[in-house]
Amino acid sequence: MKSRTIAEIRTSYYRIPLQRVLVDALHGDHTYFELIVTRVFLEDGSEGVGYTYTGGKGGKAIYAMIQADLQPVLIGQEACCIEKLWTAMQRHVHYVGRGGVEAFAIAALDIAMWDLQAQQARMPLWKLLGGANPKVRAYAGAIDLNFSLEELAENNRNYLEQGFRAVKIKLGKERIEEDIARVEAVRCCIGKDILLMIDANTGWSVERAIKVEKQLRSFDVFWIEEPLIPDDIAGYARIADKSRTPLAAGENFHSIYEFRQMLQYGKIDFPQPDASNISGITGWLKVAQLAQAYNLPVSSHGMHELHVSLLAAMPHAGYLEVHSFPIDEYTDRPMRLQDGVATPPDTPGHGVKFRREKLEPHEVKIVL
Amino acid sequence: MKSRTIAEIRTSYYRIPLQRVLVDALHGDHTYFELIVTRVFLEDGSEGVGYTYTGGKGGKAIYAMIQADLQPVLIGQEACCIEKLWTAMQRHVHYVGRGGVEAFAIAALDIAMWDLQAQQARMPLWKLLGGANPKVRAYAGAIDLNFSLEELAENNRNYLEQGFRAVKIKLGKERIEEDIARVEAVRCCIGKDILLMIDANTGWSVERAIKVEKQLRSFDVFWIEEPLIPDDIAGYARIADKSRTPLAAGENFHSIYEFRQMLQYGKIDFPQPDASNISGITGWLKVAQLAQAYNLPVSSHGMHELHVSLLAAMPHAGYLEVHSFPIDEYTDRPMRLQDGVATPPDTPGHGVKFRREKLEPHEVKIVL
Repeated sequence: MKSRTIAEIRTSYYRIPLQRVLVDALHGDHTYFELIVTRVFLEDGSEGVGYTYTGGKGGKAIYAMIQADLQPVLIGQEACCIEKLWTAMQRHVHYVGRGGVEAFAIAALDIAMWDLQAQQARMPLWKLLGGANPKVRAYAGAIDLNFSLEELAENNRNYLEQGFRAVKIKLGKERIEEDIARVEAVRCCIGKDILLMIDANTGWSVERAIKVEKQLRSFDVFWIEEPLIPDDIAGYARIADKSRTPLAAGENFHSIYEFRQMLQYGKIDFPQPDASNISGITGWLKVAQLAQAYNLPVSSHGMHELHVSLLAAMPHAGYLEVHSFPIDEYTDRPMRLQDGVATPPDTPGHGVKFRREKLEPHEVKIVL
Repeated sequence: MKSRTIAEIRTSYYRIPLQRVLVDALHGDHTYFELIVTRVFLEDGSEGVGYTYTGGKGGKAIYAMIQADLQPVLIGQEACCIEKLWTAMQRHVHYVGRGGVEAFAIAALDIAMWDLQAQQARMPLWKLLGGANPKVRAYAGAIDLNFSLEELAENNRNYLEQGFRAVKIKLGKERIEEDIARVEAVRCCIGKDILLMIDANTGWSVERAIKVEKQLRSFDVFWIEEPLIPDDIAGYARIADKSRTPLAAGENFHSIYEFRQMLQYGKIDFPQPDASNISGITGWLKVAQLAQAYNLPVSSHGMHELHVSLLAAMPHAGYLEVHSFPIDEYTDRPMRLQDGVATPPDTPGHGVKFRREKLEPHEVKIVL
C-alpha cells in the first residue's frame, strides 16, 4: 500500500479581473482579485486542493512564501497530522509571520490538507468537522460604496431575487448624512423583515462611530462591522459601551491571539474569522471554539464556498457572508441558496473544485 | 532644477551563508541569512539605500511585495514626504499587512527615503533625528544555544576583547539546570562588572519563566528577553509581577499597536523595536516616542549598523544590540566600539554603504 506522505505540491498564481470596479472605505478600488491555488499530492496519488485570495495586493508574496519557505516543511510529512504540520509551518516562518502574508500562505496549504483528510474519511467536510446543521444563514456582502442610491437599491433588489434574506452595505462616505441616506434607501427598498448589516471598513473614529450609530437606530441595523482599525481594541469597547447596535469584526485578525484580545476586551458580538487569512481551516476552527467559550456565535468573512461547510459544522453558527468576488464563476458548484439559507457540498472533501480552463488564462508565472 | 520625485526603484535579493551555524530556542538552526537591498533613485540623480534582513525565511516574499505592490505606490511621489508615503504604503497593503512580511518590505523602502532625507539635509542621520548623544551603549547579542560551556566562555571572552562591556546569551535548554549552568559559566568568565542579559526567544511558559528567574537572581542578570510568545501580553504581566529581573521584548512586534498593548498591559522595562521589521525608521521612531511616554528607555534588536544612529538621536536611549549576523563584512564601515560604547557614522545620510562586490555572488534573481 502506498503511503499518505506528501510527495509534491504545485502552486499557481492567478490575477482575475473584475467586471465592475468594487469600492470600499479602506481598500479603495478593486479592479481585479488575486487567487493562489495549491494542489497537494500524496504518494498514493490522492490530491487535495487549497487556496486563498486577496483584493489585489500581496498575492505574489503569498505565492513566494508558499513556494520558497512552506512547501519544504510539508514535503515528506504525513498529511493527516494537520495540527502538527500547522504548528511546524507557523514556527518555521515565525520571525516574518504572526499574521499578514504568512496567514494567507499557510491557509492555502492547510485547506488542501483538510480536503485530503475529508476525502480519506469519505465524508463531506461539514460532517467531518461537526455536522451541526446543513442550513446556514447567509447574507449578501456587497462592495458598493461607489454605487449611486439608485444602483444601491437595484443591487439589493437583485439580492432578494437571488434568495437572500439578509444584506450588507458599505458605509464610510465623507459626510454622515450621505451614509444615513444610503441606509435609508436600502431599508426602504428591502422592507422591514430583511436583516440589514452595515460595514465601515475601519473608516471611522470612535466619536464618529458613536454619532453614526445614534442616527442609525431607527433603521434597525443588525450589526456595525469594523467601525475602527482592528488594532484599537479599547476603542471598540468605547463604542460598544454607548451603542445599541451590536458590533462585528474579524476579517483583519490573522491570529487566534488577536481574536482573544478582541473578545476579551473589545466587546464585539459577531466575530468573523476568515479561513483564507487566518492560516486556514485549522485557524478558523480555533477561533470558532474561542467564540463559543465567549458565548458568541461564529460568522465568516469572504470565501463563502468554503465557509458554508465550516459554519454547517458548528452548533453556534452565525451568518455566512456571500462575498462580491465572482469566485462562483471559477468553480463547478455555485452557491445554492433558498429562503436565505445556504447548504454545503455533500461530496467527500471540501467540495470546492476549480474550473481550470476558466482560471488558466489568468495565470501569471513567477520564477523564484 | 530637477525634481526630488522618485523616478526608479531597484531591489535585489541576497542569500548569504553563515560561516558557523547559529542556534536559538525559537528559530532553530541559522545556516544563512537573507538580505533585501532597495535603491531609490530620484529624478535629480540622488540615490538612497534601504534594506532589511531575515534569519533565512520569508525574504523572497518580502522581495515580491516590494516589487509587485509597494514600488508602484512610491514611483512619481516626492521622496521627502515620508509620513505621507509610509501611511500610503501601509494602507495599500493593509489587507495582507499589519505586520509580518509587510513590515519588512516597507522597512527597506522607508530606510532608503530617510537616507535621501539626511543626504539632502547634508546631515548624518543621528543628528537629523535628534542628535542626543553619539555615545551609544552597546552589547554583544550572541546566537549561541548550541555552544558548549567552553565555547560559550571563549565567545564571551572574545566579546570583552573586542571592547564590549555588556553581553547577552541565549537560554532555553530542555532542563532548567542546563540554563543555569550557562549563566553561571558566563558570569564566572566575564566577572561582576560586565552587564549580562539573557534571551529565551519565546521558549518558556509563564510558570517556567518564574522558576528560572528565581534561580537566576544570584547572577545579577540585567534583563530577561522574550520569556514568552509575543502574543501573550497577560502572561508577561504575570511574570513581571513575580520577577525581580526586568523584562525585555520587541523584536517580534511589527506595529506600533502591538507595542502599545505590551507597554500598557505587559509590564516590560526594555522595549526593543527593530527598524528592519517594524516598517523602517518611521516605525522605529514612533515606538521610541511611545516608550518615552511610558517613561522607558528605547533599545534595539539587530541591524546595529543602522540602529546606532537611531539610538544616538534619542535622549532616552537604552542599549544597542550588536547582532551575530556578519553584516559588517558586507559594508564599508564596521561597527566602532570603545569601552562598550558605539558611535554612529558622521557622513550625510544613514552611512550604511554596502560593498556590492561582496554581495553580488550571493544574489538570487527573482522573476515576478
